[in-house]
Amino acid sequence: MPYKLNKKLSSLKPYDPIEGEYKIRLDANESFFNLNQVFSEKISREISKIDLNRYPDPYAADAVKAFADFYGIDSKYITAGNGSDELISIITSCFLETGDKILTLSPDFSMYAFYGALYELQVETMQKEDDLSINVDKVIDFCQDNKIKALIFSNPCNPTSLGIKREEVLRLLSNVSALVILDEAYMDFWTESILDKAGEFDNLIILKTCSKAIGLASIRMGFAVAGETISKALKAAKSPYNTDAVSQAICKCVLGEKDFLKNQFSEIIKNRDELYLSILKLSSKYQIIEKVYETKTNFVFLKTSKSAEIFSQLLKNSISIRKIGEYLRITAGSKEENAEFLKVFEQILKNL
Amino acid sequence: MPYKLNKKLSSLKPYDPIEGEYKIRLDANESFFNLNQVFSEKISREISKIDLNRYPDPYAADAVKAFADFYGIDSKYITAGNGSDELISIITSCFLETGDKILTLSPDFSMYAFYGALYELQVETMQKEDDLSINVDKVIDFCQDNKIKALIFSNPCNPTSLGIKREEVLRLLSNVSALVILDEAYMDFWTESILDKAGEFDNLIILKTCSKAIGLASIRMGFAVAGETISKALKAAKSPYNTDAVSQAICKCVLGEKDFLKNQFSEIIKNRDELYLSILKLSSKYQIIEKVYETKTNFVFLKTSKSAEIFSQLLKNSISIRKIGEYLRITAGSKEENAEFLKVFEQILKNL
Repeated sequence: MPYKLNKKLSSLKPYDPIEGEYKIRLDANESFFNLNQVFSEKISREISKIDLNRYPDPYAADAVKAFADFYGIDSKYITAGNGSDELISIITSCFLETGDKILTLSPDFSMYAFYGALYELQVETMQKEDDLSINVDKVIDFCQDNKIKALIFSNPCNPTSLGIKREEVLRLLSNVSALVILDEAYMDFWTESILDKAGEFDNLIILKTCSKAIGLASIRMGFAVAGETISKALKAAKSPYNTDAVSQAICKCVLGEKDFLKNQFSEIIKNRDELYLSILKLSSKYQIIEKVYETKTNFVFLKTSKSAEIFSQLLKNSISIRKIGEYLRITAGSKEENAEFLKVFEQILKNL
Repeated sequence: MPYKLNKKLSSLKPYDPIEGEYKIRLDANESFFNLNQVFSEKISREISKIDLNRYPDPYAADAVKAFADFYGIDSKYITAGNGSDELISIITSCFLETGDKILTLSPDFSMYAFYGALYELQVETMQKEDDLSINVDKVIDFCQDNKIKALIFSNPCNPTSLGIKREEVLRLLSNVSALVILDEAYMDFWTESILDKAGEFDNLIILKTCSKAIGLASIRMGFAVAGETISKALKAAKSPYNTDAVSQAICKCVLGEKDFLKNQFSEIIKNRDELYLSILKLSSKYQIIEKVYETKTNFVFLKTSKSAEIFSQLLKNSISIRKIGEYLRITAGSKEENAEFLKVFEQILKNL
């Protein structure tokens, strides 16, 4: 009998990043600052010290320490990963067993359900409220009523750009027995982090990434922050050398630049606010934009029945954003990128 | 009920790399050439071109092309991974389902069984012959009699340093319906690769790594080479951005240096031969070395009942090798490293 792919593989819907060359890329929620323009020499110097032939530090101690210092938390709570993607993959495959129930909220980051299906979990999906907000009481009830083993969600949320307050997250945590995987990838753009509480819960893993506000999507460094028992298990379950020496060095370099980064966060937030207000203004002029969501992230999320047309018109103008059903997600770019986007966007709206 | 780790996590035995600082490291089968001493400038130049804030190419096209050119195979058969570790993890978790039978041979690379257990596979283990060789007929029979879904093994083998000939591997492949995962991590030190045949089988995945002969263990780049159906499934199942832009750039840089690398391979093999012959000579003088295995890799494998004593004595002399039960595995280092190792090793043997 010839070898055949199994069902879960042959029915797999892969993640679908926007490919191709575009003049303005506002599709992946990256930072618009290229740090190579600032730290190129420092980075080169660090990289030239690496013994390229030797395996990297399995625990990325220097990068972890830089991350710990930056956020003011203890290194013992931190596990480095090859992007938070890898950490989600390790958690869903190892902290859960076949058939275990995992709860995702919808809409949310699509990769949570992707990994859940791949690792043969029972993926339960709970729709958010009509305004896309999360009703914490309903989530608590769902978890307890359905014996949910793990709950995973992003706060603030990609793609809705909305968030729930710190007290609400803490209340959720205290009232479920499920493992809670809290993705704070975008929390550098808001104020409601519970990173400082990570060590206090035995059912919490917070995910952080260097791909958004930090501006290092190229190097794939993510961190899981959790209590000691979970952190030890994560370190045991991960591949021995899961982060490479060069990414570790660059991560350490950049996270050491605290003032620079804090300023970068502010600049991104400023551009995000300007983009949000401009789009809000357009929405009162063009009724086809049904709703613009309040944003706690580095992107703007809006609802329109013409999402497909707008998306493809923008691509024709070499501007890439992200279309998710009847929604559009637009990353805040540089001043110039936002201005160009807004100009083309309004032109498209006019002609719809 | 408070959250508790599940059984597979709490019983996990993590991979245990040798940690600590040692003067001479012969424990991880790395190349002894630090390529930063040769290509530092070229690498810096390439890295400075990267937009650090942007996500990397999901398919590492440039690195894949460099790998394809180096080995003379078609890019369409190649999938890049974060070390072959990640590829083993993807294959065991996605190409197999809970409870599927996977066959490992023993002794072999310990991570195969590690991932098998983590992903809830039924890991079957078949002991090799008394001389640690593989009896291909027995493996074929075992696979067919036991409805094995996947067979994974290394050729040449880490840690035995032995190999089976190309014709034998091809015969094995043609006579089992299992998926065969063939780890050719060490094949650059031998002549029996079947890389050129990868596209012809629908049940074969060959794993290659840049961590051994290529000399880039630091950057975690591995490649899976397989027919088109399997390659497409691998690309769909992997995390979208599984290899980082900097590692991709370094990989491309170094794999482009074909003559340099071929010469490096020869130098490593020369040092390996010298190390092997010296240890063989010691074994006729010191009966405590029961057997030195023929080597097709970049290390020497030997059997001794005093493995623990020798291992710890070497560590005290700041020389790290690897102890595996009653065996020792010694990576071929530079001329100077081998000489120093042999001097200390003989001193230890004398005093046993």
